[in-house]
Amino acid sequence: MRAEILTIGDEILIGQIVNTNSVWMAQQLNLIGVKVAHMSTIADDEKDILNAFAEASSRADFVLITGGLGPTRDDITKTALAKFFNVPLVRDEKTFREIEEYFSKRGRQLNGINADQALILEGCSVLQNKQGTAPGLWMKYKNTVFVAMPGVPYEMKAIMTESVLPRIKKENELPYIYHHTLLTQGIGESEIAEMISAWEDTLPAKNIKLAYLPQPGMVRLRLSASGPNETELKQLVDTELKVVHEKLARFVFGLENYAAENVSLEKVVSGLLRERKKTISLAESCTGGYISSLITALPGASEVFKGAIVPYTNKAKHELLQVDEALFTTVGAVSEECVLQLAEHVKKVFHSDYAISVSGIAGPTGATAEKPVGTVWIAVAGKEKIVSKKYQFGDNRNRNIISSASAALNMVRKMILEDAPN
Amino acid sequence: MRAEILTIGDEILIGQIVNTNSVWMAQQLNLIGVKVAHMSTIADDEKDILNAFAEASSRADFVLITGGLGPTRDDITKTALAKFFNVPLVRDEKTFREIEEYFSKRGRQLNGINADQALILEGCSVLQNKQGTAPGLWMKYKNTVFVAMPGVPYEMKAIMTESVLPRIKKENELPYIYHHTLLTQGIGESEIAEMISAWEDTLPAKNIKLAYLPQPGMVRLRLSASGPNETELKQLVDTELKVVHEKLARFVFGLENYAAENVSLEKVVSGLLRERKKTISLAESCTGGYISSLITALPGASEVFKGAIVPYTNKAKHELLQVDEALFTTVGAVSEECVLQLAEHVKKVFHSDYAISVSGIAGPTGATAEKPVGTVWIAVAGKEKIVSKKYQFGDNRNRNIISSASAALNMVRKMILEDAPN
Repeated sequence: MRAEILTIGDEILIGQIVNTNSVWMAQQLNLIGVKVAHMSTIADDEKDILNAFAEASSRADFVLITGGLGPTRDDITKTALAKFFNVPLVRDEKTFREIEEYFSKRGRQLNGINADQALILEGCSVLQNKQGTAPGLWMKYKNTVFVAMPGVPYEMKAIMTESVLPRIKKENELPYIYHHTLLTQGIGESEIAEMISAWEDTLPAKNIKLAYLPQPGMVRLRLSASGPNETELKQLVDTELKVVHEKLARFVFGLENYAAENVSLEKVVSGLLRERKKTISLAESCTGGYISSLITALPGASEVFKGAIVPYTNKAKHELLQVDEALFTTVGAVSEECVLQLAEHVKKVFHSDYAISVSGIAGPTGATAEKPVGTVWIAVAGKEKIVSKKYQFGDNRNRNIISSASAALNMVRKMILEDAPN
Repeated sequence: MRAEILTIGDEILIGQIVNTNSVWMAQQLNLIGVKVAHMSTIADDEKDILNAFAEASSRADFVLITGGLGPTRDDITKTALAKFFNVPLVRDEKTFREIEEYFSKRGRQLNGINADQALILEGCSVLQNKQGTAPGLWMKYKNTVFVAMPGVPYEMKAIMTESVLPRIKKENELPYIYHHTLLTQGIGESEIAEMISAWEDTLPAKNIKLAYLPQPGMVRLRLSASGPNETELKQLVDTELKVVHEKLARFVFGLENYAAENVSLEKVVSGLLRERKKTISLAESCTGGYISSLITALPGASEVFKGAIVPYTNKAKHELLQVDEALFTTVGAVSEECVLQLAEHVKKVFHSDYAISVSGIAGPTGATAEKPVGTVWIAVAGKEKIVSKKYQFGDNRNRNIISSASAALNMVRKMILEDAPN
């Protein structure tokens, strides 16, 4: 079962809005076992639209179209469909009455433009739009089902949920699709590939797909498979996931059962702290408050987060966090000594169970011969111990900040796990 | 000049990530006068990829491809291109040396998989990737230029900015496109629309396009026109920009001459501080370090930013910033009294010229009858004065944090401008 998603509208092509409709539709289709093989966005241009219809119908079982169903002149999806199917547009009386009602409820006068929203393709089935005036349309062309929906997100979502998805499920025997994702930190894509290459070779024979999804500071590894039996599928994928989990154990910080629920290091760390009723504080120099902002972006942060100090100057490091002044002229602020003192003192200042400190050269300036841009020292203090580590990241300021955050959060995650649960 | 954007990668088709690359690319192409007529996303599947190449080449002058250039096995864009162009993959020695250097800089061992990143299509031009290891490739097929770039956003953006856009501009006679954008804070899209409606009606006759670009806490208004004469074009647009600037004067915080250079409130504030050799510090409660992270994301932050304290608990507000303890049981931490004390003390603690303090209820929890989610108090302290203001934002935690940051930065911007330059 192959689906394609077609978005019609100039606003996406000039980069004015992000196409979040497609993402949502793809998630929903995947969940019911329909594979989305293609997404395209085309302009409000009849020739381009007809072309796209022809291409999609040659490949797909389902073509889901959004946009261009509105009442204004730039909305031409319906007339293009009529041309493509070679059928006239006729007024649907039920839809017309619904539109009349929609307007009278809001105390507004129905005009000619809005009445035209009741025009549908002769012979199509109408998918009621309870949230607006443009109904969805469902029609078959040779072996391909075309579904046209308005582009307004909540209208499209309601029509998908109430009509499209149930009907696809009812009319087709769909396979199950199962994804499970391993989250790693502190190792690059290519190093992982080398470590798991022999295992990766065995996947195609099992019809399992592996995807590497890198982002600064971490790589997500997604295993996917589809088949008729849900239980077998899960077992198949999870067995392999276990294998690769073991191989990469020291880099793994979490699992993601389904794409939608996005697991991050700050979520994992906050979750562990909450579970154990522990708290954290931070002394962030080169990360400038970024790690704190990640933690406090999560609802309920105040249960685990006590606070942070961003001592951007040496004076502030000394005055607020008692860093030994002599240190600045000997080893400098980007040093093991400095982060150890910062972590210890910030933990005391905020009365927290754990503390992170970061001091580094984010760039582009501030480098020395021994400390190039990207040199970052991180320390993590816990109940009984304190650890520190030097990192050498790259030369991009923002990535150095993001990578420092991932590394720091993973260090504290490991320390929390090493500590006895209570 | 017609361009198409082709994104290769399963992660978008299963709805795991939103395709923000395409949006950015479309914006950039539009800015130099190239129209994007089609965007598609296809799976990591050779047949689908070859199909998409053929379709795109039949329609477009430029096909910009992202994704599938990584070092791992699910990355098949390069081999698909080699098949489509019917040329072998050969090792590019310059790229190979760059990859070697990339690895040695990071103290990592180059492995066989990474060495393969130096394989390029015979006869193509290589677009250096300074941010990663997969170079961009530029090649011509009949009348269509194909450009392949990695899908990692910052790598793609660097290659686009440094190589692709300049080369498209150089090799083609593009119409001039002139955009000028007004940046506003503290007013919604629909309020603006109402205020400028009569003026907006006059634009189509002048061939000027107006776009509303809303984001949390601010709205950008972009005026665009295209034509053969650059000087006339600028005059035409800037005359109108002046009109709308006057109408919205008290909400305007800046102008953006060109979308690429992205003027933000933190840039405006940092720029003003640098010009006047002044410094800032922050006490961030509900924004949790977010404003500091915005300021410190900018290169050279240490010239203007002294530091921040994120006192997430009442105890920390009292112990670190001398907030009167009695206040917590009377007016509470989300109050004018609290932010005034926070701003005054944090300014002293960091010896800065200006200080911002924020205390509010970001949500979803923490609300009371008098202080619903979205209630935020902000204070700004300067040389001689201190001001405070209460805001009522919405019920989305992240948007409340972002909106608080915009409001706070705009408050300090206004105060700096009101102060005598020295």
